[in-house]
Amino acid sequence: MILELADFSIHPNQSAAFEEAIQRGLRTIIANACGFEGFKLNRCLENPQRYVLQIFWTTLENHTVDFRQSPAFAEWRAIVGPFFAAAPVVQHFDLVAKSDAVTG
Amino acid sequence: MILELADFSIHPNQSAAFEEAIQRGLRTIIANACGFEGFKLNRCLENPQRYVLQIFWTTLENHTVDFRQSPAFAEWRAIVGPFFAAAPVVQHFDLVAKSDAVTG
Repeated sequence: MILELADFSIHPNQSAAFEEAIQRGLRTIIANACGFEGFKLNRCLENPQRYVLQIFWTTLENHTVDFRQSPAFAEWRAIVGPFFAAAPVVQHFDLVAKSDAVTG
Repeated sequence: MILELADFSIHPNQSAAFEEAIQRGLRTIIANACGFEGFKLNRCLENPQRYVLQIFWTTLENHTVDFRQSPAFAEWRAIVGPFFAAAPVVQHFDLVAKSDAVTG
Protein backbone atom coordinates (compact mmCIF):
# COMPACT_ATOMS: atom_id res chain seq x y z
CA MET A 1 0.00 0.00 0.00
CA ILE A 2 1.11 3.51 -0.87
CA LEU A 3 0.37 6.74 0.97
CA GLU A 4 -0.42 9.84 -1.07
CA LEU A 5 0.19 12.90 1.07
CA ALA A 6 -1.29 16.12 -0.28
CA ASP A 7 -0.56 19.44 1.39
CA PHE A 8 -3.17 22.13 0.68
CA SER A 9 -3.17 25.85 1.41
CA ILE A 10 -6.65 27.31 0.96
CA HIS A 11 -7.96 30.85 0.76
CA PRO A 12 -8.84 32.44 4.12
CA ASN A 13 -12.32 32.21 5.62
CA GLN A 14 -13.40 29.29 3.46
CA SER A 15 -12.76 26.41 5.82
CA ALA A 16 -16.39 25.35 6.25
CA ALA A 17 -17.11 25.40 2.53
CA PHE A 18 -13.83 23.65 1.75
CA GLU A 19 -14.41 20.93 4.30
CA GLU A 20 -17.87 20.25 2.91
CA ALA A 21 -16.61 20.22 -0.67
CA ILE A 22 -13.58 18.02 -0.15
CA GLN A 23 -15.52 15.46 1.86
CA ARG A 24 -18.11 15.37 -0.91
CA GLY A 25 -15.36 14.87 -3.47
CA LEU A 26 -13.70 12.17 -1.40
CA ARG A 27 -16.90 10.21 -0.89
CA THR A 28 -18.35 10.60 -4.38
CA ILE A 29 -15.21 10.50 -6.54
CA ILE A 30 -12.07 9.33 -4.75
CA ALA A 31 -13.79 6.51 -2.87
CA ASN A 32 -14.86 4.99 -6.19
CA ALA A 33 -11.38 5.04 -7.70
CA CYS A 34 -9.62 1.79 -8.48
CA GLY A 35 -7.18 0.92 -5.68
CA PHE A 36 -8.60 3.40 -3.15
CA GLU A 37 -8.17 2.03 0.37
CA GLY A 38 -9.01 4.95 2.62
CA PHE A 39 -8.41 8.61 3.45
CA LYS A 40 -7.71 10.94 6.34
CA LEU A 41 -8.11 14.69 6.32
CA ASN A 42 -6.40 16.85 8.95
CA ARG A 43 -6.43 20.59 9.56
CA CYS A 44 -3.44 22.47 10.95
CA LEU A 45 -3.80 24.19 14.33
CA GLU A 46 -0.98 26.69 13.81
CA ASN A 47 -2.08 27.56 10.26
CA PRO A 48 -5.83 26.94 9.80
CA GLN A 49 -5.53 27.46 6.04
CA ARG A 50 -3.32 24.37 5.83
CA TYR A 51 -4.85 20.93 5.35
CA VAL A 52 -3.12 17.60 4.91
CA LEU A 53 -4.97 14.90 3.03
CA GLN A 54 -3.76 11.32 3.18
CA ILE A 55 -5.09 8.86 0.65
CA PHE A 56 -4.13 5.20 0.75
CA TRP A 57 -3.83 3.40 -2.59
CA THR A 58 -3.12 -0.23 -3.32
CA THR A 59 -0.38 0.72 -5.78
CA LEU A 60 1.34 3.95 -6.84
CA GLU A 61 -0.08 3.56 -10.34
CA ASN A 62 -3.63 3.42 -8.99
CA HIS A 63 -3.15 7.11 -8.22
CA THR A 64 -0.67 8.34 -10.80
CA VAL A 65 -2.08 6.49 -13.79
CA ASP A 66 -5.51 4.98 -13.15
CA PHE A 67 -6.89 7.99 -11.30
CA ARG A 68 -5.00 10.94 -12.74
CA GLN A 69 -5.59 9.82 -16.32
CA SER A 70 -9.30 9.22 -15.76
CA PRO A 71 -12.11 11.75 -16.17
CA ALA A 72 -12.61 11.52 -12.40
CA PHE A 73 -9.45 13.56 -11.84
CA ALA A 74 -10.89 16.62 -13.56
CA GLU A 75 -14.15 16.20 -11.64
CA TRP A 76 -12.23 16.08 -8.36
CA ARG A 77 -10.13 19.13 -9.19
CA ALA A 78 -13.26 21.03 -10.21
CA ILE A 79 -14.60 20.50 -6.68
CA VAL A 80 -11.49 21.26 -4.63
CA GLY A 81 -9.34 23.35 -6.98
CA PRO A 82 -11.19 26.66 -6.51
CA PHE A 83 -10.28 26.69 -2.81
CA PHE A 84 -6.53 26.38 -3.32
CA ALA A 85 -4.42 29.46 -2.57
CA ALA A 86 -1.35 27.72 -4.00
CA ALA A 87 -0.59 24.62 -6.01
CA PRO A 88 -0.99 21.52 -3.84
CA VAL A 89 2.18 19.68 -2.87
CA VAL A 90 1.62 15.98 -3.49
CA GLN A 91 4.09 13.17 -2.93
CA HIS A 92 3.89 9.44 -2.28
CA PHE A 93 5.27 7.43 0.61
CA ASP A 94 6.07 3.92 1.77
CA LEU A 95 5.38 2.93 5.34
CA VAL A 96 8.63 2.43 7.28
CA ALA A 97 7.23 1.64 10.71
CA LYS A 98 4.30 2.25 12.98
CA SER A 99 3.36 1.50 16.55
CA ASP A 100 1.10 -1.44 17.27
CA ALA A 101 -1.91 0.71 18.06
CA VAL A 102 -2.49 3.64 15.77
CA THR A 103 -5.97 4.92 16.34
CA GLY A 104 -5.64 8.28 14.57
CA MET B 1 -6.45 13.44 20.00
CA ILE B 2 -3.92 15.63 18.22
CA LEU B 3 -1.68 14.73 15.29
CA GLU B 4 1.90 15.99 15.29
CA LEU B 5 3.21 15.95 11.74
CA ALA B 6 6.97 16.30 11.43
CA ASP B 7 8.62 16.69 8.05
CA PHE B 8 12.28 15.66 7.97
CA SER B 9 14.95 16.08 5.32
CA ILE B 10 17.99 13.96 6.07
CA HIS B 11 21.50 13.84 4.67
CA PRO B 12 21.95 11.59 1.64
CA ASN B 13 22.96 7.94 1.94
CA GLN B 14 21.99 7.66 5.59
CA SER B 15 18.55 6.15 5.28
CA ALA B 16 19.36 2.81 6.90
CA ALA B 17 21.11 4.39 9.87
CA PHE B 18 18.40 7.02 10.23
CA GLU B 19 15.60 4.47 10.13
CA GLU B 20 17.31 2.39 12.81
CA ALA B 21 17.97 5.42 14.99
CA ILE B 22 14.54 7.02 14.74
CA GLN B 23 12.76 3.74 15.47
CA ARG B 24 14.98 3.28 18.49
CA GLY B 25 14.16 6.79 19.64
CA LEU B 26 10.45 6.27 19.08
CA ARG B 27 10.33 3.02 20.99
CA THR B 28 12.64 3.96 23.86
CA ILE B 29 11.78 7.66 24.36
CA ILE B 30 8.65 8.84 22.56
CA ALA B 31 6.60 5.75 23.44
CA ASN B 32 7.15 6.46 27.13
CA ALA B 33 6.01 10.09 26.93
CA CYS B 34 2.85 11.17 28.71
CA GLY B 35 -0.05 11.27 26.28
CA PHE B 36 1.67 9.29 23.51
CA GLU B 37 -0.90 7.27 21.56
CA GLY B 38 0.98 6.00 18.53
CA PHE B 39 3.24 6.84 15.62
CA LYS B 40 3.68 6.26 11.92
CA LEU B 41 6.84 6.82 9.90
CA ASN B 42 6.70 7.16 6.13
CA ARG B 43 9.46 7.63 3.54
CA CYS B 44 8.92 9.60 0.36
CA LEU B 45 9.21 7.81 -2.97
CA GLU B 46 9.97 10.90 -5.06
CA ASN B 47 12.51 12.27 -2.56
CA PRO B 48 14.05 9.44 -0.50
CA GLN B 49 15.70 11.94 1.85
CA ARG B 50 12.23 13.09 2.96
CA TYR B 51 10.48 11.38 5.86
CA VAL B 52 7.14 12.24 7.46
CA LEU B 53 6.64 11.22 11.06
CA GLN B 54 3.15 11.27 12.56
CA ILE B 55 2.82 11.11 16.31
CA PHE B 56 -0.57 10.96 17.98
CA TRP B 57 -0.91 12.71 21.35
CA THR B 58 -3.85 12.84 23.71
CA THR B 59 -3.57 16.64 23.95
CA LEU B 60 -1.50 19.33 22.25
CA GLU B 61 0.19 20.13 25.56
CA ASN B 62 1.34 16.54 25.96
CA HIS B 63 3.72 17.31 23.09
CA THR B 64 4.40 21.03 23.38
CA VAL B 65 4.74 21.22 27.16
CA ASP B 66 5.03 17.81 28.80
CA PHE B 67 7.41 16.36 26.22
CA ARG B 68 9.32 19.33 24.90
CA GLN B 69 10.04 20.66 28.36
CA SER B 70 11.21 17.31 29.66
CA PRO B 71 14.77 15.92 29.55
CA ALA B 72 13.44 13.31 27.10
CA PHE B 73 13.27 15.93 24.35
CA ALA B 74 17.02 16.49 24.39
CA GLU B 75 17.61 12.73 24.44
CA TRP B 76 15.35 12.33 21.40
CA ARG B 77 17.03 15.14 19.48
CA ALA B 78 20.45 13.72 20.28
CA ILE B 79 19.40 10.52 18.50
CA VAL B 80 17.68 11.96 15.40
CA GLY B 81 19.13 15.47 15.13
CA PRO B 82 22.49 14.52 13.58
CA PHE B 83 20.70 13.12 10.52
CA PHE B 84 18.77 16.30 9.69
CA ALA B 85 19.88 18.23 6.60
CA ALA B 86 17.49 21.06 7.53
CA ALA B 87 15.41 22.10 10.49
CA PRO B 88 12.38 19.81 10.84
CA VAL B 89 9.00 21.33 10.01
CA VAL B 90 6.60 20.40 12.80
CA GLN B 91 2.94 21.38 13.10
CA HIS B 92 -0.13 19.98 14.83
CA PHE B 93 -3.44 18.93 13.35
CA ASP B 94 -7.01 18.11 14.23
CA LEU B 95 -8.77 15.28 12.44
CA VAL B 96 -11.49 16.62 10.12
CA ALA B 97 -12.68 13.36 8.58
CA LYS B 98 -11.58 9.89 7.64
CA SER B 99 -13.00 6.94 5.79
CA ASP B 100 -14.44 4.06 7.79
CA ALA B 101 -11.57 1.73 7.06
CA VAL B 102 -8.10 3.24 7.25
CA THR B 103 -5.60 0.46 7.36
CA GLY B 104 -2.44 2.43 6.61
